[in-house]
Amino acid sequence: MQSDQWLLIREARQEASVGKTVEVRAWVRTRRDSKAGFSFIELNDGSCFGNLQIVAQGELDNYSSEVQKLSAGCSVVVEGKIEASPAKGQATELHATSVRVLGWCDSETYPLQKKRHTFEKLREWAHLRARTNTFGAVARVRNQICDSIHSFFQENDFYYTHTPIITASDCEGAGEMFRVTTLDLERMAKSGKAVNYEYDFFDKPTFLTVSGQLEGETYATALGRIYTFGPTFRAENSNTSRHLAEFWMVEPEAAFFDLQDNMRLAEAFLKRVFTDCLHQCDEDMDFFEQRIQPGVIEQLKSVIDRPFAHMTYTEAVKVLENCDAKFDYPVSWGTDLQAEHERYLTEQHVGGPLILTDYPSSIKPFYMRVSDDGKTVAAMDVLVPGVGEIIGGSQREERLDVLQRRMTEAELDMSHYDWYVDLRRYGTVPHAGFGLGLERAVQYVTGMANIRDVIPFPRTPGNADF
Amino acid sequence: MQSDQWLLIREARQEASVGKTVEVRAWVRTRRDSKAGFSFIELNDGSCFGNLQIVAQGELDNYSSEVQKLSAGCSVVVEGKIEASPAKGQATELHATSVRVLGWCDSETYPLQKKRHTFEKLREWAHLRARTNTFGAVARVRNQICDSIHSFFQENDFYYTHTPIITASDCEGAGEMFRVTTLDLERMAKSGKAVNYEYDFFDKPTFLTVSGQLEGETYATALGRIYTFGPTFRAENSNTSRHLAEFWMVEPEAAFFDLQDNMRLAEAFLKRVFTDCLHQCDEDMDFFEQRIQPGVIEQLKSVIDRPFAHMTYTEAVKVLENCDAKFDYPVSWGTDLQAEHERYLTEQHVGGPLILTDYPSSIKPFYMRVSDDGKTVAAMDVLVPGVGEIIGGSQREERLDVLQRRMTEAELDMSHYDWYVDLRRYGTVPHAGFGLGLERAVQYVTGMANIRDVIPFPRTPGNADF
Repeated sequence: MQSDQWLLIREARQEASVGKTVEVRAWVRTRRDSKAGFSFIELNDGSCFGNLQIVAQGELDNYSSEVQKLSAGCSVVVEGKIEASPAKGQATELHATSVRVLGWCDSETYPLQKKRHTFEKLREWAHLRARTNTFGAVARVRNQICDSIHSFFQENDFYYTHTPIITASDCEGAGEMFRVTTLDLERMAKSGKAVNYEYDFFDKPTFLTVSGQLEGETYATALGRIYTFGPTFRAENSNTSRHLAEFWMVEPEAAFFDLQDNMRLAEAFLKRVFTDCLHQCDEDMDFFEQRIQPGVIEQLKSVIDRPFAHMTYTEAVKVLENCDAKFDYPVSWGTDLQAEHERYLTEQHVGGPLILTDYPSSIKPFYMRVSDDGKTVAAMDVLVPGVGEIIGGSQREERLDVLQRRMTEAELDMSHYDWYVDLRRYGTVPHAGFGLGLERAVQYVTGMANIRDVIPFPRTPGNADF
Repeated sequence: MQSDQWLLIREARQEASVGKTVEVRAWVRTRRDSKAGFSFIELNDGSCFGNLQIVAQGELDNYSSEVQKLSAGCSVVVEGKIEASPAKGQATELHATSVRVLGWCDSETYPLQKKRHTFEKLREWAHLRARTNTFGAVARVRNQICDSIHSFFQENDFYYTHTPIITASDCEGAGEMFRVTTLDLERMAKSGKAVNYEYDFFDKPTFLTVSGQLEGETYATALGRIYTFGPTFRAENSNTSRHLAEFWMVEPEAAFFDLQDNMRLAEAFLKRVFTDCLHQCDEDMDFFEQRIQPGVIEQLKSVIDRPFAHMTYTEAVKVLENCDAKFDYPVSWGTDLQAEHERYLTEQHVGGPLILTDYPSSIKPFYMRVSDDGKTVAAMDVLVPGVGEIIGGSQREERLDVLQRRMTEAELDMSHYDWYVDLRRYGTVPHAGFGLGLERAVQYVTGMANIRDVIPFPRTPGNADF
C-alpha cells in the first residue's frame, strides 16, 4: 500500500524502528533552532498522539532557505535514520538526511497558532480543529469506540443491519422530526395552495429516522441477532452541551433474549468498549486524564472492574425517598428519574455501575414488555458514575394482544404499524435490545464537556456549516 | 451472554457438537411426518444458511397436540442431543427430548408459504423477507462486506470518520438533493408568502449529503488516513434496477497518497472484501451460485486471482475505436464511457479487472488533480467483469491556484468552499481517495439483479414504506 521506506509516525516512534532508514510524511507542530547550528522539528501525521522529533543539521542543502522557515502546519517529507533518543519521553528520533517541503503554512493567517484557542472558537474552524492535540485525540478515540462496537457485535454473532434513514413512519414525537422533501419550497410557499404530495419524491410526507429499533426488530426476528449503527436525528430545539440534531446510535436487537440476557449483553458491551479505549488509545487517554478531565481513567476502570449492580425502579425510588440528599426534582413512584437521581444512585448509593429495571409502564414506550404485575415493563437503564444513564433498553412486548392493547392506549395510528404487529402474528419470539448514543459514549470516555466537540461537524439549532 | 446449553444453529450443525446435550431456539422451515410415528423438523435461526434437522419422536408429550401442527414460521425451543446424521448434506441432527412452541404461525394467512414468490412481491413484505433463503443470505453477505470494509481499513491505519448527513453545501447537482426542513409545509403552502428561513431549524436551506468526500478531506489532512461509511442520498427520479434514493457508501481518503497509491489501495481492498465473502459466507455463496447467478463465484475469483490491469482513458478510447464490437453509444476522446464500453474493456479486451486512469478533465469534477498535459486529471475508475465500474476515485488537486481556477471554471459559489480551499492554504499535501457504493458491491457478490433486493428497506421514487 505504501513505499517501502514510508513509516507512519506511530511506527517510527517505536523502539523497534531504531537503525532503520525511513521516510516520514507529516505536518510540523513546532520548530526549535539550536545555537549549535541545527534544528529540532516536532512532526505529527495523525497516526498517534505523540510527535516524532526530527534532528535537522545545518548541513542540509535547504537548511537556511527552508528548514529554518518551517512553522506550525507546514507539510514535509523527511528522510533519514531512526536513532534512539537521549531525550525524555520519546524512544526514538529521526536524524534527517533530507527535508522536503510539500506545503507552506503562513503563520500570520493560519488560525491554529501556538496560542491556545477555546473549544468554542475552534468549532468555527471545524475543518482544521482535528489538527490540534485535543481534537486529534477525540477522533482517534471515537474511531476506537466504533471499531470496538463492530468487533464486539461481530464476535457475538450479531449481523450489522441498515435500517432506513428516510422514513414515512412519523411515530412517537412527530414534532421533533425533520421533514425530507423534494418539493420546491419557494414556489410552494408563494402558491397559497395546499401541499400536493403527488409532486413530492415519495408521494407522501417523509422524515429522518429517530431510531432504527422497530425496523431492526424485523431483521432480529429473521436473522436472530442484529445491530444497527447509523445516524439518527432529533429536531429538538435544545441548545445544550448534551444535545445534537444529528448523532450516531448503535442499537442491538436479539431474538430469544429476555431482559436478563439483555443486561448481560449491555454489561459485556460497555466493558469491552472501555477496555479497548484504555488499551488501544493509551497516549490519547493520558492526555484526557491530564488536560481534560482528571480522574477519567479511574472512572472507566471502575466500570470495567466490577460486576454491574442491579436494582428495580421501585427499589431505587425507595432509596431516593429515604436518603438525605437534596434534589431539584422530587421523586415518587411513577415519575421519571432525573440525571441527579441517577447519579446519586450510581455514585453515592452503589459506588459503581448500576442497571435499573422494571420501570412503570406509564413512563415508557408502547413496545416494552408488560410485566406480570401489570404496572411495570421489562425496561432497563444502565447508569454509570459521572453522567447517569448511558444505555436504555428493554425486552419487547412479543404478545400480540398485549401489544395491540398498548398501542391503542398510546393512540397510535395502527395502519402505520401493521408490519410491526405482523412480527407478533407470525412465529413471535421473546426479544430484547438497547440503544447507545455514540457521542454520549465518546464524551464519557474522553471527558469532553460539550457534545459538539466529539463529532466532526456538529448539527445544532442554527448550525449546519460545512 | 447466553444460557450454557443454547447453541446457535451454525454451531449445532458442526461435527464438533455431536454428543452434546443442547437447546436451540429457532423458526420452523418445514415439517415432515414419518409413517413410523416420528417427525423431521427443519429449523433455521438465521445464524447460517443451512437448517438443523430435528428428529421428534411420537413419545413427546405434545407430539400430536403441538408438534404435528407445526408449520413454516412457527418459533420453537428444542432440547435434545446432537447426533451424527445419517442423511446426506448435514453433519448433525438433533434428537429432541422436548419441543416447546413459542409462537404459532397461521399457514392460511402467513405470506411466506412454501410457494415461491417473486422478488417483486417479496418487496411488499420487506419486514418478513429476511426469513427466506435468498434474503437471509443477502443479509449475511451484506454484513460480511461491511465487516470486511471496517477490518480492512482499520488494519491499514485508516480512522473511521463521520461526515455530516445534513449539509448546507448544495454543491454539484443541487437539483438532485433532498431538502431537510422543520418548516410547517402545510401552513407555509397556504400562506402565499416567501419562505422565511429564520423559522427553519438551521436558519437556512439544508440538504441530505450526496458524498462525504470534501468533509472527509478535512480529516485526512489532519489524521492522515480516514474513511467514511454512511448513508448517502440522491433525489434522482430513476426507476431502475441500479438506483436507490438512499444507499450506503464507503469513501477512504489518504494524505500523502498519489494516484498509484490509490490504485494499490483499491485493488487490495476489493480483493480482501471478495475473498472474505467466499471464505466466510461459503454456504450463502453456494446458494447464489446455484440459484441466483451461475458463475458468480468464478467471477469473484477472477477479480481476486490476478493483478488488476492498468490503462489510460486515452488508450482505452483507442481500443474501443478500433475494435469490432457494436456499441449503442459512439466513443471518441472526451466522451464519458458507458457501461457497454467499460464491460467490453474488462470482459473482452483484458479478461479481468482493469483500472482506467487519466480521464479528460472536462468530464470530471473540479477537485480532481490536473495532470501536466493540462487536458486530463488523475482520476481512476476500477472496472470489473459483469458490471463495469465498481469504484471511482482520484488524486485530489492540492495546488491552491489550480484548484481555484478549476472552481472558477466550474462556476462554483466560492463562499461555500472557503473551508475546503483552506486545506490548500495551510500545509497542503498530495492526497487521494475513492468511493464504493455498498449496494453495488452486494449486487456484484451475490448476483442479485435488482438493487432494491440488497438493502433491507429500499427507498425509490414513490416508495418509503416501513
